[in-house]
Amino acid sequence: MSQLEQQIKAAIREVEDFPKKGVNFKDITTLLASPELCNQVTDYLAETYKSLDIDLIVGIESRGFLFGFSLAQKLNIPFVLARKKGKLPFQKISYSYELEYGTSIVEMHVDSIQPRNKVLIHDDLLATGGTAGAVAELVKLREGVLVGFNFLIELSFLNGRQTLEKQSNNIISLAKYF
Amino acid sequence: MSQLEQQIKAAIREVEDFPKKGVNFKDITTLLASPELCNQVTDYLAETYKSLDIDLIVGIESRGFLFGFSLAQKLNIPFVLARKKGKLPFQKISYSYELEYGTSIVEMHVDSIQPRNKVLIHDDLLATGGTAGAVAELVKLREGVLVGFNFLIELSFLNGRQTLEKQSNNIISLAKYF
Repeated sequence: MSQLEQQIKAAIREVEDFPKKGVNFKDITTLLASPELCNQVTDYLAETYKSLDIDLIVGIESRGFLFGFSLAQKLNIPFVLARKKGKLPFQKISYSYELEYGTSIVEMHVDSIQPRNKVLIHDDLLATGGTAGAVAELVKLREGVLVGFNFLIELSFLNGRQTLEKQSNNIISLAKYF
Repeated sequence: MSQLEQQIKAAIREVEDFPKKGVNFKDITTLLASPELCNQVTDYLAETYKSLDIDLIVGIESRGFLFGFSLAQKLNIPFVLARKKGKLPFQKISYSYELEYGTSIVEMHVDSIQPRNKVLIHDDLLATGGTAGAVAELVKLREGVLVGFNFLIELSFLNGRQTLEKQSNNIISLAKYF
């Protein structure tokens, strides 16, 4: 385990039984209280992705707006919002995907990605990969080139990685829980 | 009007009749597509607030997570999430406030602010000031010292400024619409 991964794990708070009984929630608000570590994370991500010539980063509502945007600013590239249904004001593309119970819809503005744009998708957490996979479908719909997925945290035991590998093999998470 | 304000207004897209008939929505996703301007905004905010010895920034879900966090990283201070009811996992303080129809609740983690911490509240938009005012009540509840409010956009005609002035006179918005 790298030193950065150790530091991130030490900064994350685990909250038992949230959002429901038996789930051990990984709370990043305690990481956000460590500005030096947050800057280290952003610097590390910028270093990791700078050679890939990414055109834009898509961040997933709402915790994906944090490091997604700070990384985009560091790389000096546009930042695109992927949001839940009904939040974006302009013309949209939507993708519906299945959750444990029922379905959910994720949306992006139709003009946020141009054909052949190289796109990185960022969220704070990789769980089952449902939402990130749906956002990847939106990138495809706009003929963007998916460069990879980035997450702060990966819950490996939920096998989201296997789901996302159909869309890109470049899946990087900074702190893995087994 | 300053050059920065002109640039921000030029970058913001106005969308008619969102979220309902008669409302001219200010869409910042087109601003997020201009990384140079986004970096200019963050730099300007850091310059504006650096002498105030702010201990932490509270950003309001979810667009307030964007520049709120990038400013906190620039100033090298903690970032605190103010979220809608039920989103935060740990022990919380809550404040209920009135909307046009019905009420809404905003929450913060109980350990996110310590007594006498100097706090800046940030959101992308000042409309009626209801949410930002509620967050200021949470800051007070934790005995924080409210240094001021910051917004990218202010809809002056909704008089949110008058509402917030009861809590702090330091209200800065970068682009005002009359």
